[in-house]
Amino acid sequence: MRFDLVIVGAGSGGYEAGLYAHRRGMKVALVELSPESVGGNCLNRGCIPSKYMRHGAYLLEKFQKMPSYGILPKGYDLDMKKLREGRDHVVVSIREGFKKFAQQLKIPIFYGRGVIKDERTVYVEGEDIELKTGFILLATGSSTTSLGNLVPDGRYIYDTDQIWNLESFPKRMLIVGGGAVGVEFAYIFKMYGCDVVLVEIKDRLLPSNDIPEESSRYLARKLKRLGVDIRLKTSVESWERKGESLNIKLSDGSEVIVDAVLLGVGRKPNTEGIGLENVGIKKDQRGFLLVNEYCQTCVENIYACGDITSPLMLAHKSMYEGRVAVSHMLGDRDLKRDERIVPKIIYSAYEIASVGLTEEQAEEMGYEVKVGVVSFVPNPKAMDDGENEGFVRLVVDAENGGILGCHILGPYAGELIHQVVHLMKAGKDVEFLSKSMYAHPSLSEAIGQSAMEVHFGPLTWAKRH
Amino acid sequence: MRFDLVIVGAGSGGYEAGLYAHRRGMKVALVELSPESVGGNCLNRGCIPSKYMRHGAYLLEKFQKMPSYGILPKGYDLDMKKLREGRDHVVVSIREGFKKFAQQLKIPIFYGRGVIKDERTVYVEGEDIELKTGFILLATGSSTTSLGNLVPDGRYIYDTDQIWNLESFPKRMLIVGGGAVGVEFAYIFKMYGCDVVLVEIKDRLLPSNDIPEESSRYLARKLKRLGVDIRLKTSVESWERKGESLNIKLSDGSEVIVDAVLLGVGRKPNTEGIGLENVGIKKDQRGFLLVNEYCQTCVENIYACGDITSPLMLAHKSMYEGRVAVSHMLGDRDLKRDERIVPKIIYSAYEIASVGLTEEQAEEMGYEVKVGVVSFVPNPKAMDDGENEGFVRLVVDAENGGILGCHILGPYAGELIHQVVHLMKAGKDVEFLSKSMYAHPSLSEAIGQSAMEVHFGPLTWAKRH
Repeated sequence: MRFDLVIVGAGSGGYEAGLYAHRRGMKVALVELSPESVGGNCLNRGCIPSKYMRHGAYLLEKFQKMPSYGILPKGYDLDMKKLREGRDHVVVSIREGFKKFAQQLKIPIFYGRGVIKDERTVYVEGEDIELKTGFILLATGSSTTSLGNLVPDGRYIYDTDQIWNLESFPKRMLIVGGGAVGVEFAYIFKMYGCDVVLVEIKDRLLPSNDIPEESSRYLARKLKRLGVDIRLKTSVESWERKGESLNIKLSDGSEVIVDAVLLGVGRKPNTEGIGLENVGIKKDQRGFLLVNEYCQTCVENIYACGDITSPLMLAHKSMYEGRVAVSHMLGDRDLKRDERIVPKIIYSAYEIASVGLTEEQAEEMGYEVKVGVVSFVPNPKAMDDGENEGFVRLVVDAENGGILGCHILGPYAGELIHQVVHLMKAGKDVEFLSKSMYAHPSLSEAIGQSAMEVHFGPLTWAKRH
Repeated sequence: MRFDLVIVGAGSGGYEAGLYAHRRGMKVALVELSPESVGGNCLNRGCIPSKYMRHGAYLLEKFQKMPSYGILPKGYDLDMKKLREGRDHVVVSIREGFKKFAQQLKIPIFYGRGVIKDERTVYVEGEDIELKTGFILLATGSSTTSLGNLVPDGRYIYDTDQIWNLESFPKRMLIVGGGAVGVEFAYIFKMYGCDVVLVEIKDRLLPSNDIPEESSRYLARKLKRLGVDIRLKTSVESWERKGESLNIKLSDGSEVIVDAVLLGVGRKPNTEGIGLENVGIKKDQRGFLLVNEYCQTCVENIYACGDITSPLMLAHKSMYEGRVAVSHMLGDRDLKRDERIVPKIIYSAYEIASVGLTEEQAEEMGYEVKVGVVSFVPNPKAMDDGENEGFVRLVVDAENGGILGCHILGPYAGELIHQVVHLMKAGKDVEFLSKSMYAHPSLSEAIGQSAMEVHFGPLTWAKRH
C-alpha cells in the first residue's frame, strides 16, 4: 500500500498531524501499537485521566467554600470505583471517537510496531505489512523510567502507567518526585482523603528553570495547608515491605510507613527498535532525535515530533511540531518549531502556567528586564468565585517592551496564558497588552494590569497585599 | 481646590480613569454620590454581587455531576443569610479597598452630587464645595427603569437595585425580561431551589443582534432542562396581590402565582441634574451624550465615558472609554472608542461571550462570510471537567481572512473570548489564529480548531455531534 505520509505513533502528535495532513490533501496512514493505545500516553495514561481526577479534587476542595455561598453540605462518601468509571469513560470515549473519526475520514490505522525499513518503507510488525510512502513522521512518544531500587510492581510501587489501576484509595501514600506528575497526584490523593508524603530531591517543587520560584513557593504553601507532607532536598534511601505496608527510609533520617508509592520521576524517548539505524537517523546522547527547525531529521523525507525531539514532553508541543512537519512537507516555510511559545501548564492545587522566559532566565541571557506582578487577591471575578489567590508575572524586555515571558498561578491559568502566547507569537509588545480590552469582571483583567504595571509604571496593586 | 481632572462618578469607569490619570501624572479628584456608592452599579448592585451568586448556582449544579467523580454527597441545606453575607463581604471588601487605595494614592473622593457649573468648575452638592479643574470626565452611569404597571416596591416587585435585599429565597418567582439580567437570575434562583417563570416579549432569550440566535437557543434549552419555565413572545398583562402572593396574568392567556417579581428590563443613562445645560453639552433623543471617538463632548475639555455614551452599558466599555478620554487629554491619539472589540459576556447556565459581528450582521453589512464552528462536546478538557457543552463560532471575512467576530458558549467563555479580542485589536487574521499554539488539553483548543475549520476547510468536528 502506498501513502503520501505514514505516521508512526497515533498519540497526540501523530494523530493531530494525521488530521492536519488529511485536511491538507495528503493520503495518510497511522501506525500504532494497539487499538488500546490510540491517543498515546497523554490520552490513556497521562494528561486526560489525571485532569479528570484533578477536577474531582477541585470539587472536593470547593466543599470548604460552599458555606460562603449559602450551601451547607451534609458530608459525602467517596467511591474510587465510580471515579475510575467516570475517568475511564472519558478516556475510552475520546479514544473510540478518534478511531471512528479516522475511519470516517478514511485514514487507516495499522496496528503493531512501526519500523523504518528504508527511506520510503515502514514495516508494521503486528500486521506484517509494508507501507510505501513519500514521507514518514516519527511520533513514537516516551516511556516511564524507574529510579534506583524503587522498581514499579503495580501492586505497592506504581509508575504513571500503572497508577490508573488502583482499585481503592490507599490510606497513606508516598509520591517520589515533586515535578508536574508529583504535585498533580499529591493534590488529587490528598483531596480524596489519603495521607500524602511528597519527596523531591531538589530544593523546590517544580524544579524547572522554566518555572519561576514564586510558583513553586505558592504551590508548596497551599499543598502544605491542605495537609500534604512535603520533604524537599530529600530522597528515598531504602525500603522494605512489612505485611501490606512499606517502610521507607528517607535521606532526612526519617522513616515513613505507607501503603503505596507513586514514582513521578521522568520519562525517556521511545527511539529504540523503530529502525532508525536502517536509514542512519542520528540521536543525541540522551536518545532524542536530531531535527531541524522544521522537524526534519537528517533524512530528507523523514520527520519527527513530540517527546522524541526534546525533553519538553508536552502533548501540544508534539501536536504543534506535527503540524510544522506536515507544513514543511507541503512546501510551507512559515511554521517552525518554537519552544519559546510552548505553554507549560501544571494542574495541582493551583493551575500553574508558564510561557517564555522567567526573570532569571532573561537576565542570564543578558536582557534588561522589567517585571509586572499583579495579584489575584483583589481581582473581583476571582473573589466572586472564591479563588482569589495567585498572580500574573509578566516578564518584559526593558529596552523595547517585548514580551519575554509570562507566569500565571491561579484560577484558569491554563486558559489565561493563551492570551500571552498569541501575542508573543504575534510579536506584540507590552504596550499593546496594556491597551487592549478586558471584560469586567474577569480574571483576564489581571493580565492587562500586569502590562500596565510595566508600561506605565507600578501602581502597587500587588504590594497592597 | 484645583485639579487637572475632576471625574464625576466613581463607578467602574470613573474609578479606573482616576487610577489611570493618576498613573500618568495627573492631579485627580473623584466625585461620588456617597461612600456607599463608590464602585457604582457594577460593584454594588450589578455584575459583582450577581457573579458571586452565580458561582453558588454553578456549585449547586456541580452536585449533579459529583457522583461521576466518585463523590457521593449526602445532600445540603440552603441558607440565604450566609449567601448574602458572603456576597456582601466581597462587595464591601472591594469597595473599601477602592477607597483605601485612592487614599494611599492621594486621590480625594468628594461625596455628593457633582454638577458642572462652568467649563472649569464642578460643584459638589453634598459637601458644598467647588472644584476647579483643567478637564472634566463625566462617568455618571445609569439607573433602572420600570415597566408599565409593574412598579418596584422592594417587597413583592423588585428591580435590580432592590433584589439584593431579599432575605429568603422566594418559593415562586417571575422574572420579567430575558436579557442578561433575566437569564442570570433565572439560573441563580432556579439552582437555589425557586420555581422560576421567565417571560420575554421577543421571540428569543438574549434578544440582541450582537448575540447569535444559536447562543439563545442553547441557553433556553439548558434553562428548560434545569426546570425554568420560559415564556417567549409573552408579557405581563396585569397583576394583583392576594395575601402574600401575586396573581399575574400573562399575554399568553395563562395566570401564574408567585411570591416575588424581578424586573430586568433595561436602564436609562444618568444625564439629568448634572449641569449639562450650564455648558451646552448635547444629548441624543434617548438621553445619551454625544461624544467623538476620543470620548470628548462638544465642550473641548469635558469628556464622558460608559453608560452615558451609548446603550452598550458594560463596565469594561466604561473603563476602556475612561482610559481613552484620559489618554486624549494627555495628547495621545492612538486609543479610540471601539465598540467592535467590546466583549459581551453573560453568566447564566452557560457562560456566553460575544465579540464583534454575528454572521447575520456581517452579511447585512455586505461581507462574504465564512464561519468556523467547533463544539465543546468532544473537547478533552471540557470532558474532564464535566462541562462539554457549547461551541465556538468564529466569523471571518471570506475575502481576506479578517476576524469579524467570535461567539463562545460554554465553559469559561468569558475568559476564552479575550484571545480573540486581542487578535482582533491586533488585526491578526484567521490564518494566524489557526497556526498559533494551544495547550493540550485546554478549552482554548476549540478556538484554534474553529480557525482551522475556516482556514483549511472543515474537518466536520462539529458535525460529528
